[in-house]
Amino acid sequence: MGRPFVHPVRVRYAECDRQGVVFNAHYFAYFDLAMTELWRAAVGRYDAMIERGIDMVVAEAQARFLHSARFDDEIDLEVTVERLGTTGSTTRHRVVRDGDVLVEGVLRHVFVDPETLEKTPIPDWLREALEPYRVTPPGARP
Amino acid sequence: MGRPFVHPVRVRYAECDRQGVVFNAHYFAYFDLAMTELWRAAVGRYDAMIERGIDMVVAEAQARFLHSARFDDEIDLEVTVERLGTTGSTTRHRVVRDGDVLVEGVLRHVFVDPETLEKTPIPDWLREALEPYRVTPPGARP
Amino acid sequence: MGRPFVHPVRVRYAECDRQGVVFNAHYFAYFDLAMTELWRAAVGRYDAMIERGIDMVVAEAQARFLHSARFDDEIDLEVTVERLGTTGSTTRHRVVRDGDVLVEGVLRHVFVDPETLEKTPIPDWLREALEPYRVTPPGARP
Amino acid sequence: MGRPFVHPVRVRYAECDRQGVVFNAHYFAYFDLAMTELWRAAVGRYDAMIERGIDMVVAEAQARFLHSARFDDEIDLEVTVERLGTTGSTTRHRVVRDGDVLVEGVLRHVFVDPETLEKTPIPDWLREALEPYRVTPPGARP
Repeated sequence: MGRPFVHPVRVRYAECDRQGVVFNAHYFAYFDLAMTELWRAAVGRYDAMIERGIDMVVAEAQARFLHSARFDDEIDLEVTVERLGTTGSTTRHRVVRDGDVLVEGVLRHVFVDPETLEKTPIPDWLREALEPYRVTPPGARP
Repeated sequence: MGRPFVHPVRVRYAECDRQGVVFNAHYFAYFDLAMTELWRAAVGRYDAMIERGIDMVVAEAQARFLHSARFDDEIDLEVTVERLGTTGSTTRHRVVRDGDVLVEGVLRHVFVDPETLEKTPIPDWLREALEPYRVTPPGARP
Repeated sequence: MGRPFVHPVRVRYAECDRQGVVFNAHYFAYFDLAMTELWRAAVGRYDAMIERGIDMVVAEAQARFLHSARFDDEIDLEVTVERLGTTGSTTRHRVVRDGDVLVEGVLRHVFVDPETLEKTPIPDWLREALEPYRVTPPGARP
Repeated sequence: MGRPFVHPVRVRYAECDRQGVVFNAHYFAYFDLAMTELWRAAVGRYDAMIERGIDMVVAEAQARFLHSARFDDEIDLEVTVERLGTTGSTTRHRVVRDGDVLVEGVLRHVFVDPETLEKTPIPDWLREALEPYRVTPPGARP
């Protein structure tokens, strides 16, 4: 059983809207940032992955906004890998501040050949590298 | 039976990423823009709505990315109102280029008092103003 | 003597910061947008220019912030071409609301070969196309 | 004689444009970020400064773009305080990668009362707190 990957960031002024909180669309940019850092922890630079013949595109994104992050807040971007299919993955995301979950999200990615952008199977080296971050949600089939 | 509200925009350079396509998080900013323009069409300036005692916050957002919009593309931001509950709404969004659906999305909003940020019922004047854009999805109860 | 190119836009919610005004960095995105639309008016799509062997990179940017644009404001993005050198241009920008100048700016671009990114002379067809927007500032040598 | 304040960051995917480099307007968001972190180092949270009756607005911004920062690059955001007038400051900014200066910039701020937005003198506590970062440029009067 894995554990979440965690990347701490601080909310920047430019990320906040007129209400003084992070603009909703920006949480999806946080999810993207968390993916980049997950790759770094698991396999190295994102571009190294591309050089090895694997890129990915977002197929689906969703988020539930429970509480707001504010300018200067220190927040944790958490990711777990919920599913690794043949050519796609599902990751679960949380934005957490002092133990409180502010936002929950899900991203579904499709792995593609960087040249042709055709779907391509997730290679074994990538599958193994992500294993430490795999968390099967309660009630789901493993 | 209503019809979608449509707001045409052109993709800006700053909205595109390294792959030359609109960065995924940015589609949620497009959905937000479509809401602002829907309010304008239905009831006037967004801030006039606030002055009348109604603001809204996003509670949930999701999108499916089917095809990519590129720099300089002319796209239509479509919105329909799917549900108007007591204090919340669900809107359906599509990003369309030359008749092709690029992205489909859903936003769920909660209506709040601008002062207290407490949930507040959708007033009748707003309900009536949104009626022309209400579309019950096929198979749903009206 | 030319006249400014003018591109009207409306300030989007996501462009505003906690103070309720356009975030300062965003005005440079407006200047960039004005350039794209200037090219469209003068020679067509930006990418058509690239296909003809000309791209450009920003070498210098500056802005003076006099007044703030707010969410939902209708503003005019104005551009004039102040200088067309051998391989570079200087454009002057203004953000105007109801006749009031909110922001003044200057961009200096260098023209490059899209393949090599080496400096390349401004071709005559581009020089002629920009002529209608050339304005020599008062006191400058023509 | 002071020394620059330095805040290291890593370039995010969403900050890069179609050319694979940081979009020019975004460097001004970096300058803003550097200011927030300079305040943190000098006097604490930005909002604590506001609570003490001092806010600031950007009056002028400029940048020279020498080289490009790319996705995933580790860069240093450097700031020095060049001038502290009665009610305004001038800061010099550099974006540096591995010792190479990529971008040079200048921001001019005006200090204001957070309530009235009227110009207000820089208080002594703030002046002293910024002293360690003051650098008089070569050739300038001290």
